[in-house]
Amino acid sequence: MSAITPLKQITLIGVGLIGGSFVLDLKRLGLVETVVGIDLNRENLDRALERRVIDAAFTEINAESIGGADLVLIATPVSTLPMICQAIKPFLWADALVSDVGSTKQITVEAFRTYLPEHLPRCIAAHPIAGSDRHGALAAQFGLYQDKKLIITPHGDEHSDGLGRLESLWQAVGAKTFRLSAAEHDAIFAAVSHMPHLLAFAFVHEIFDHPDGQAYLNFAASGFRDFTRIASSHPAIWTDICLANKNSLRDLIGGIRRQLDTLEQLLATGNKAALYTYFEEAKSTRDEWLKGQ
Amino acid sequence: MSAITPLKQITLIGVGLIGGSFVLDLKRLGLVETVVGIDLNRENLDRALERRVIDAAFTEINAESIGGADLVLIATPVSTLPMICQAIKPFLWADALVSDVGSTKQITVEAFRTYLPEHLPRCIAAHPIAGSDRHGALAAQFGLYQDKKLIITPHGDEHSDGLGRLESLWQAVGAKTFRLSAAEHDAIFAAVSHMPHLLAFAFVHEIFDHPDGQAYLNFAASGFRDFTRIASSHPAIWTDICLANKNSLRDLIGGIRRQLDTLEQLLATGNKAALYTYFEEAKSTRDEWLKGQ
Repeated sequence: MSAITPLKQITLIGVGLIGGSFVLDLKRLGLVETVVGIDLNRENLDRALERRVIDAAFTEINAESIGGADLVLIATPVSTLPMICQAIKPFLWADALVSDVGSTKQITVEAFRTYLPEHLPRCIAAHPIAGSDRHGALAAQFGLYQDKKLIITPHGDEHSDGLGRLESLWQAVGAKTFRLSAAEHDAIFAAVSHMPHLLAFAFVHEIFDHPDGQAYLNFAASGFRDFTRIASSHPAIWTDICLANKNSLRDLIGGIRRQLDTLEQLLATGNKAALYTYFEEAKSTRDEWLKGQ
Repeated sequence: MSAITPLKQITLIGVGLIGGSFVLDLKRLGLVETVVGIDLNRENLDRALERRVIDAAFTEINAESIGGADLVLIATPVSTLPMICQAIKPFLWADALVSDVGSTKQITVEAFRTYLPEHLPRCIAAHPIAGSDRHGALAAQFGLYQDKKLIITPHGDEHSDGLGRLESLWQAVGAKTFRLSAAEHDAIFAAVSHMPHLLAFAFVHEIFDHPDGQAYLNFAASGFRDFTRIASSHPAIWTDICLANKNSLRDLIGGIRRQLDTLEQLLATGNKAALYTYFEEAKSTRDEWLKGQ
């Protein structure tokens, strides 16, 4: 990797686990001089200042918070992206990069095209594949992106130097970068991430709805704990992601319904051999995946 | 806890994680002199001898392997229980306890009643709530049951001394013991354990069936890993469990279908507020449970 010219200022909009962990590592590496944080939650900003995740804090988007940024990184729930693009537009320095960390990318690309058309060559849609059920500035941590994937979904009108610069920053914090179309990205992540979240929420909601659910939970153990970990994810973030990617998710819900039909049929008929094969195919698929990690 | 008289011999039928870990701890505590292992898999028996999980190995049920046992512990897939009860019957010492570790209990109680009616007062159905996606003698480990739950599902005809003795052995290895009816037990574990396994298998099978599933898996991350951990469970064991508990599971499949209907409706209408509430209810349920662990 060739030497990267440090940024003078990153303005991070939404100071939480994802953006906070990125800027922590960039500061450690000397790749950014100043990080300005913008967040609606004053207490969260105070925590971020204490932990030196950010160097200055603002509760609103204005000339002072945006004007000096080489990179404006939007790390808020995906539904806020259009509004934020509109809000930052008057204050953006002409050469500033704009990027995001959202889990659905067609909506990002659309927001860039619609609300920042003159700035489009410097707008880059990105998605780091790392997360946790923890959130907020206190969850920010060094090394979160080491050996994680970072997907860029080019809209085609980027200047290559800006795209390369963003990639090199993510590579510097340890991520492996990939490029996919936004549509491809959204289909893939519906399948491997958004649908598991939806199923985990659905399963726990079934316990919540069940008259004896609370009593049953006294006997839940490690299988339950791991299977439902992602049901502890942030509801606002996941509402946004699921709505932004609802077409892929509705297809996948159909797929899961068909799997449940198959399973019910195998249980009803007591078809032991076919049920074994069904489980074995799932186990092999998962075991093979795990070996490759 | 009062002092426990050590057992002279445990015969463990099915030498794997669950039974193996139990006898390892009993040996360490000096609560059993000799453990005889019976398993169909000779290689597994050799591993168990090497690791001193067992002291003698047999590949079949006969007078020699069963006759000297104070406790015959059946730790094989639940569907084999009726056959094993029939097979051990001629060789059982009159005072020997017979117990199991199966994940469904109505089937155990039924097998005891049907195949060991004269021995019923000394037959005790039990289920330790501990597991792993690992299996076989090499997976046996010390301390597996520390602070775990052990459920006994009395059929009502037990001699209380045998029941108390079995409880005290499980308590000695660290388990907290509970008593539930077999029907209650099966409804609870369908909800908190068997259904998550079924859903994890169903979800991974949907990826297996999808034409682009393998490519998608390149982007699966930690959420996928934890959500699907239990899909790496042993297919034969889970085929047995799901068939043994199929009535409860079919009810729960119906429940999950209704949850998916609700979610699809919320996605289709873009009902952000209701989707948020749905996710938040699930998150709170899971977070509250976790706090109590």
